Parts: sequence; structure tokens; C-alpha cells
Amino acid sequence: MNKFVVGVDLGGTKIYTALADSGGRLAAELMVPTGAREGPEAVIGRIAETVSRVMKEACVGPGAVEAIGIGSPGPLDPATGVVYNSPNLRGWFNVPLRDRLREATGISVFLDNDANLAALGEYYFGAGRGSVNMLYVTVSTGIGAGIIINGSIYRGAGGGAGEVGHMVLSPGGPLCGCGRKGCLESLASGTAMAERAAELVSAGLGKAILREAGDDPGQLTAASVARAAGAGDPEAAGIISGAGTYLGMGMANLINVLNPDRLIMGGGALEAGSLFWDSMSRELAARALGPALGDVTVVKSGLGGKSGLMGAVALALEACGERLPHK
Amino acid sequence: MNKFVVGVDLGGTKIYTALADSGGRLAAELMVPTGAREGPEAVIGRIAETVSRVMKEACVGPGAVEAIGIGSPGPLDPATGVVYNSPNLRGWFNVPLRDRLREATGISVFLDNDANLAALGEYYFGAGRGSVNMLYVTVSTGIGAGIIINGSIYRGAGGGAGEVGHMVLSPGGPLCGCGRKGCLESLASGTAMAERAAELVSAGLGKAILREAGDDPGQLTAASVARAAGAGDPEAAGIISGAGTYLGMGMANLINVLNPDRLIMGGGALEAGSLFWDSMSRELAARALGPALGDVTVVKSGLGGKSGLMGAVALALEACGERLPHK
Repeated sequence: MNKFVVGVDLGGTKIYTALADSGGRLAAELMVPTGAREGPEAVIGRIAETVSRVMKEACVGPGAVEAIGIGSPGPLDPATGVVYNSPNLRGWFNVPLRDRLREATGISVFLDNDANLAALGEYYFGAGRGSVNMLYVTVSTGIGAGIIINGSIYRGAGGGAGEVGHMVLSPGGPLCGCGRKGCLESLASGTAMAERAAELVSAGLGKAILREAGDDPGQLTAASVARAAGAGDPEAAGIISGAGTYLGMGMANLINVLNPDRLIMGGGALEAGSLFWDSMSRELAARALGPALGDVTVVKSGLGGKSGLMGAVALALEACGERLPHK
Repeated sequence: MNKFVVGVDLGGTKIYTALADSGGRLAAELMVPTGAREGPEAVIGRIAETVSRVMKEACVGPGAVEAIGIGSPGPLDPATGVVYNSPNLRGWFNVPLRDRLREATGISVFLDNDANLAALGEYYFGAGRGSVNMLYVTVSTGIGAGIIINGSIYRGAGGGAGEVGHMVLSPGGPLCGCGRKGCLESLASGTAMAERAAELVSAGLGKAILREAGDDPGQLTAASVARAAGAGDPEAAGIISGAGTYLGMGMANLINVLNPDRLIMGGGALEAGSLFWDSMSRELAARALGPALGDVTVVKSGLGGKSGLMGAVALALEACGERLPHK
């Protein structure tokens, strides 16, 4: 009899669930809205429902699924399976997600944070194949990372490793969501680009960007900036290249400290376009030390929106002793 | 018959060699000047001589020494045993130190860089006992680190991990020895403190510091700054607290990225006194994320000038299969 696992990528807006065989091949997948406002119990019920739906769709009976891997926005403790309090899941405080989902499904559950699992997904199934020491950095509203060292997720002393968004790069810089100033996230995330646009608009500038936000300053996003830049607006281009430059500095710092063989970039903010990527690459090349720069390949995510899901599948397969190919 | 190893800490100014038993207890030790100006062959000959002298002193015959561990200033490749080109060992380019020392002594040799071995020394014998994920950061003329992950030296893809001195912290900051601007090393090392003093003196200020340098601007060092600060000079105190603040920022960045359980600080620049340490600690506590800060203990080196030597001993013992106690 074949062995199957289920992977779940729990996000603030969607639950993405798939059934996979022992080689990580997906037999069925499903995406539903999270409905986070309804609270943890409703969300856990909905996750359990997606699990039975993918099993049904693939005609896999209850006994054939050995484990569920689930990635959740953090902070959380992979050892106890508790999600502490996630800014992306309102009303979640100390939710024993692992145990509750096991009770709801009758299947063993393994939990980790979304950035760690996206890294693991890329490592086994995406742009990280063949690497040994790898970083996956996601740039969206925030900036976070998953670190793979010697082929395993590196979690640090308390499961908190990878908080690269709060690396300070400009001590007197903009206020960050964490309350400190000049963190990478306050300089180079999607949120940072939207804030730079809002600053321009408050100063009576940034007309082209504002137009892309329907002339409503409350609707300014990184996407408005990207669209304006795409249409040739120099102010928008300045915001993007500035953010990309800081991102490159941050990535160079990581390369100098960790000397990885692979750096994989993912997250929605990369959709700000090639100017963002090029500014990052230029600064990274200027700031990383020569030998470490020579050791690393910097690439975009190979799995895109699926890296977290595939990482959840890999976590479940690792947990039930599968040795996944990695090359 | 007892098993012995030899540890060698090769520095720009001194060779520090010791014979140790299988538990890492030193039976004989010896320090001689490096005489780096005489070139690699002379230095390797001198190292071999210290090895036979410590053996003789402890009455240990040739057959009883199983391995030599040696730490050298980098960059180097631990796998091939070649020192590429060390700024602290003039005239060393691609020196096969491991093989040459094995030929000269007839004993197996294991090489690593000084920061990695200082970390390993602290891990087994010093302030790192009991830790799992540990950083050792040395602050002297430069700033470097050794990283221990899951109880092993983490070297990265090409042996270059730990170059924390070239983490950028102030993009438009002072010129660093690496040719870039605003690296941690250009802001917080002993060299940085001496340079800030020289800048004051060029501007007609810094009289009290200059006095500590015998009124010779060419003799300004971090020690002159420390002495002036100790005597109550506010300009000197400003230099030290500024450097300490940047050091704290850099350490917070490492804590946020790696979430270690232990951060051990060593190196001569710590002798700048409690103001340096206190400024660092204050900034570190303000900049590190709460949970990661709660997970880490920040302490001074437990072995001081012996951490590199003890790391070389540990490297040799690990290489010949000894399981060292670690608690």
C-alpha cells in the first residue's frame, strides 16, 4: 500500500492544502479562504475539512495518510506545536494548533513556521535542489527567512532564527513595525515601498503613483508604486531602486555572515519588477565579500506560491522517515 | 599508553603551542615570536620546533602525539589545509600549511581559522560550555566570528562563514579595510576607535587622547582612547560609547538572524573598558527581538588569550575521535 501525507500552508488569507505521495508528488490540491476573523476554532475546523476533501478527491482512505505537515505564520514553537500570536491570524494567542488539528483529523501533525517551510520546500522541490547551506528570503509586507544548514531547517535556540527583517541597516532610518528604527523590513519590504510613496504624496509629490492608487492615499501599495514605475515614473523608480538597494545590503550581510551556497528570493514584493531585482543584485555584488559572493547562487523561488505548501509536504514526509531525493 | 595532541595558535605576532592529554588538559605550553617577516618556511620551521619542545618538556615521545590542531589567521581552506593570503602573515600566499607542517613533524595536522577555533575552544573549555548554538565574536583590530551550530563549527559553503565585521550597519559610514563603507569593523573595532581619535586630532580636538599617545598622532590607538576615557576625557568616552553602540547593533543583528543560546565576546578591544561593554549591552538589548534576547546569554570569553589555543587542541582531539565532555 502506498504511503501518503498531507501538506497545509496556512496563511492570513488562504488555506492551501494538498495530498502527496511518498515522493512528494501532489495527488490533489485545494485552496480555500482562511476566514481568520472567525477565530482559531473555525479555522482549524476548516483546515480539517480541506484535509478530508483532498483525501476524498484522491480516493485515499483514512488509514493511508501518515502525517500532516502544516506551516503557519509565526511566532510559534515547532516543538510544542503552539502558535503564540500571529499578526496575520487575528485573535490567535497560544493556540495549540498541532494538537487541535490532530484531534480533528486523527492524524499526526507537524508544525513549523511559514518561512522555514518555504525554505524546506525550495530545498527539496524547487530552486534549492542540490544545495547544502541555503537561505530562503521572502519579501512581501514583511521580510523573513528560512535557513537550511547541512540539509536541515536551522531554528536557533528558541525557534526564532531567520528574523532577517529586523536586521538594522540604517540606525536612524524609518520606524519599523517592530517599534525600532531602520530595520531591513522598514527599508525594503512592500510595506516600506508603500510608506515611501505615502511620504511623497504627503509632501505634495508622487502624482503618478497616487493615480495608480485611484487617487486615494489610503490605497497606496507597493503595487501602485510598481505600476507607476512600469509606466516610466521616475519617483516610483526611485522608491523601488532605493528599496532594492537596501535589500541587496541586507542580503550581502547574510552572505558575509553565513556564506551560503544558495540564496533564494521569494515573496510578492519581487513583483515590483526587474528594477527591484537589479538594484538588489548590484548592491549585493558590491557589498558581499568576494569569496562568499563566488560561493553563492542568487535565484528566484522555483515554486512561487507553492513553496510553503511543498515545505509542509516535505516536513510530513521527513517526520514519517521518508528520505527525499535532493539533487 | 596515554593519547596526546598538540594545539598551535598561530598569530601575526606570536606562536602559542601546547601539548594536551585526551581530556584537553595542558601538560606543557610555550609562546615564541612568529617572526612573520622571515616568510612562511621560517615560520613553519619555528612551529615544528615548538611542537618538539612541548613534547620534550612533557616527556612525551614521538609516537604518543596523535594529531596537531592549528589555527591560523585566514582566509584559508580547512579542507585542503591551504592558507590563501593572510593580512596578518605578510608574504603568505597559498601556503600549504597543513601539509608542510605534517612533513616537518611527521604528525597529522588539522587546520582551521583562528576565529573558528577560538569559538571551539570556548565551546568545550570556556564560556560556551553547555551551549548548542553559539557565536564567538572577537573585537580587536578587526571583527570576526566563529559560529557553532548544533555543536559543530559552521564554516559555510567555502569556509568563509563568520565575516561579521563586514556586515554593513551604516551605508554611508567610514571607509573599511575591505574597501567598502560602513561595515561593522569600520565602526566598532579597535582600529575604528583609533581612526575616530585621529579624525578628532586632525580637527584640532582630542588633546587628552593625543597626550596618551605621547603627543604623536602616528601613535594613536584604541588603547590611547581607553586611557584618556579612563582619566575622564569626554571626547574619548564619546568614541568608546559610539563604537560600543555600533557593536551592540551588529550583535543584535546576529541574534535576530541566528537566535543563538550563547554570544561570547573576546578580543583586545574589550579592554577599552566597561563603557564599551555597557554601550554594547544597552544597544543590543534595545535592538534584539524580545524572544531571541531572552534565549541568549551574552558573556565575555572564559579563556581570554587561550581560546584559540584550546580550540586547536579541541580540533586535534575531535580529529582523532575523542569525545570531549561539554557541559
